[in-house]
Amino acid sequence: MTPSIAKGTRDFSSEEIYKRRHIISVLQSNFEKFGFNPLETPSFEKLQTLTGKYGEEGDRLIFKILNSGDFLENVKEKDSEVSTWNSKNIIPLISEKALRYDLTVPFARYVAMNHGKLTFPFKRYQIQPVWRADRPQKGRFREFFQCDADVVGSESLWYEVNFILLYDSVFTELQLPVEIHLNNRKLLAAIAEYAEIEDQLIEFTVALDKLDKIGLDKILEEMVSKGISQKSLDRLVPIINLSGSFEEKLIQLKEIFQDVEIGLEGIKELEFIYNSTMQIGLQTADLQFNLTLARGLDYYTGTIYEIKSKNVAMGSIGGGGRYDNLTEIFGVKNMSGVGISFGLDRIYLVMEELNLFPKSTQKNKQILFFNFGDRESIHALMLIQKIRLMGFACDLYPEKTKLQKQFSFAEKNNFEYVVFYGEEEIKNQTITIKNIIIGKQETIATDQLSDYLND
Amino acid sequence: MTPSIAKGTRDFSSEEIYKRRHIISVLQSNFEKFGFNPLETPSFEKLQTLTGKYGEEGDRLIFKILNSGDFLENVKEKDSEVSTWNSKNIIPLISEKALRYDLTVPFARYVAMNHGKLTFPFKRYQIQPVWRADRPQKGRFREFFQCDADVVGSESLWYEVNFILLYDSVFTELQLPVEIHLNNRKLLAAIAEYAEIEDQLIEFTVALDKLDKIGLDKILEEMVSKGISQKSLDRLVPIINLSGSFEEKLIQLKEIFQDVEIGLEGIKELEFIYNSTMQIGLQTADLQFNLTLARGLDYYTGTIYEIKSKNVAMGSIGGGGRYDNLTEIFGVKNMSGVGISFGLDRIYLVMEELNLFPKSTQKNKQILFFNFGDRESIHALMLIQKIRLMGFACDLYPEKTKLQKQFSFAEKNNFEYVVFYGEEEIKNQTITIKNIIIGKQETIATDQLSDYLND
Repeated sequence: MTPSIAKGTRDFSSEEIYKRRHIISVLQSNFEKFGFNPLETPSFEKLQTLTGKYGEEGDRLIFKILNSGDFLENVKEKDSEVSTWNSKNIIPLISEKALRYDLTVPFARYVAMNHGKLTFPFKRYQIQPVWRADRPQKGRFREFFQCDADVVGSESLWYEVNFILLYDSVFTELQLPVEIHLNNRKLLAAIAEYAEIEDQLIEFTVALDKLDKIGLDKILEEMVSKGISQKSLDRLVPIINLSGSFEEKLIQLKEIFQDVEIGLEGIKELEFIYNSTMQIGLQTADLQFNLTLARGLDYYTGTIYEIKSKNVAMGSIGGGGRYDNLTEIFGVKNMSGVGISFGLDRIYLVMEELNLFPKSTQKNKQILFFNFGDRESIHALMLIQKIRLMGFACDLYPEKTKLQKQFSFAEKNNFEYVVFYGEEEIKNQTITIKNIIIGKQETIATDQLSDYLND
Repeated sequence: MTPSIAKGTRDFSSEEIYKRRHIISVLQSNFEKFGFNPLETPSFEKLQTLTGKYGEEGDRLIFKILNSGDFLENVKEKDSEVSTWNSKNIIPLISEKALRYDLTVPFARYVAMNHGKLTFPFKRYQIQPVWRADRPQKGRFREFFQCDADVVGSESLWYEVNFILLYDSVFTELQLPVEIHLNNRKLLAAIAEYAEIEDQLIEFTVALDKLDKIGLDKILEEMVSKGISQKSLDRLVPIINLSGSFEEKLIQLKEIFQDVEIGLEGIKELEFIYNSTMQIGLQTADLQFNLTLARGLDYYTGTIYEIKSKNVAMGSIGGGGRYDNLTEIFGVKNMSGVGISFGLDRIYLVMEELNLFPKSTQKNKQILFFNFGDRESIHALMLIQKIRLMGFACDLYPEKTKLQKQFSFAEKNNFEYVVFYGEEEIKNQTITIKNIIIGKQETIATDQLSDYLND
């Protein structure tokens, strides 16, 4: 049997893992500095916990786990007329568990299950894989990590401000220049009201989202074809054409929405968030007002975030927003919250492209002792143990064989140093150590090894 | 809908995660110091990669993933006579993927797939969850982590020695006193040959495994009932009764097995491993020769390890051994290897019982700024950002409300410090900071905050 890997999945080599770990550790330490604590939920949930939360398409893309044992028994009992069986109605009879599709629904399930015990506002971060039965394609996998931070149980806009500071802090530490795009779901509602396109709001935002790609004329065409009237378009164009700085855009919108209450509300929120953030100050990120930003329209109710790399065209590398009623579907009401997410795979790709990974994401120096036979190996391992206790990665070649072969092993495995510790060295209490990257070899006293390696 | 969690799974709270992370980070850093590099494989594999590798019982306990789309189409096409369908023969038609059952088979699949690219001996460690459809019970879960380190492609006994040093190093760092039990599969084969119980070897080892629990008389009874002859028992009893130090036991066995070649081989290996390890020296672990140790008899071919806590009765908290032909089933021959595993859940329980977790597994000091209103909050966040950059976890209470309420929030969320930074303090460039654990409050200049917190 020739082995292969399941479609849409990946093995991660140590090099990739060290790089991913670099990103994840920056995320973790920042989440924690911003007062989020980790949460981990199981890889699978009851199917009914997930079903109906992601729309019809989402339900289809959830990986279902087959019941154990004689799972068909159930079906035969219910309906012996097998010709009527079909894949859709049989699912709940043969599957009661499913793989996590995102981190939000399990988080909502956790909050609802434990809401008597938790103190609110409750902040958590979660970095775990999720699974989707999407058709795999370049950059889209069936197993991938999500990295979320949320706070629920408060409507305070200070959380919105803090998430901007958090994004800024993470991407500054990763040395990855980004734009933080900001919008507010209330402004989209205001546009709908102002231009009388309440019924075509989704079509409008879908078209609007393509502004950067296809330009104004094309999206107006598309809107007309979707049944948006000329009268509406006349009111929409000045909004779409809004230009200037963050503040200038807000001033113009205030004028346009002077009679649209929900619009003024959205503007007030954005003003507070923008002004506060500017006074506190960002390290490296640019904050931009992006009225075309829609992101999961159905889900968000207030602020919407999206992150773009300044230098690499990659789409969004993060996003989030404020939502109402995280847990209502699980019977717990009034849980407004706000959360953001980081796109690990895309951040990885951008950092690769910009060469932003530290030269050595592997912290340890790697040292290989050559093997000169059993007697020498005992002495070698005594020294190796000391070197490991100093915190370095150190190993003994497993067999006495030609030095050429041992040397080639060291090179192929990216060892930085090789050590000769034969009879002579053992007697003299010295070692001969060679940095094979710069090609420099020295013989030093064994008790100077610590100084040598820490240099 | 009242939410609940799937049977046999767990949510991990932040406190548990910080403790698990403490163990995992000790494992990771030691694996790396001993020259192992990380590998991660996907959560699911092709079903055919896993089927047939864990015995019939194992096959039953593998979680299968239902195919997406119209999965019944397949079945109906193949066999429209639905009355003949049964749960077992239908599985390969409706499921082609399954959740990882252990880390060894995916590792073997990885080595076989990449054996042209890898350099051997190849060392990897892997810390990932696995899933088993076992009946959940106290301490047994359907999702749990395995922590494995293996080296394949060499028969060198230095690896066996290094694994003992690795166990010693990990448990010394965790401050958890352990016994490392050692045996060799060849000695079990030698016993079978010597006592002429080749056909009852499994029954013999199963009974032998209970020696500690039920005593010699009972296990002899059990052996008789399994058809082991009196003549065989006469030869077995002196072996079972073997006593003395590691070396003394080896000397006696050498005498007993003087004509059993495979026995002498096993003794020679154990002798080499024991003597080398003793010369190099262990930090805290006890090394014991345990002839009753069988562990997955079918799988191991040489050295067998098992780890027991010295102070807590918990069964094995780790184990492993040498095996032949890791990848033969995937068409790649002659891959002898040796590997060990750490039982994360059990190590956690033992450390809890012995109170071995560091007081604060959470590295950061937690600081909460009280909220005195929007104007003050701007200033507070400027200072909070500086504190976060110092590496501490710092947050602002989200709303201006009664101090009593803010204080109670700080207590419930285990903040170590609360900070009063109101109009007066802002004007004077001071802060009032209270350590709520020891109940000490001070007013200091804001520019002394770093010294204060790093104290």
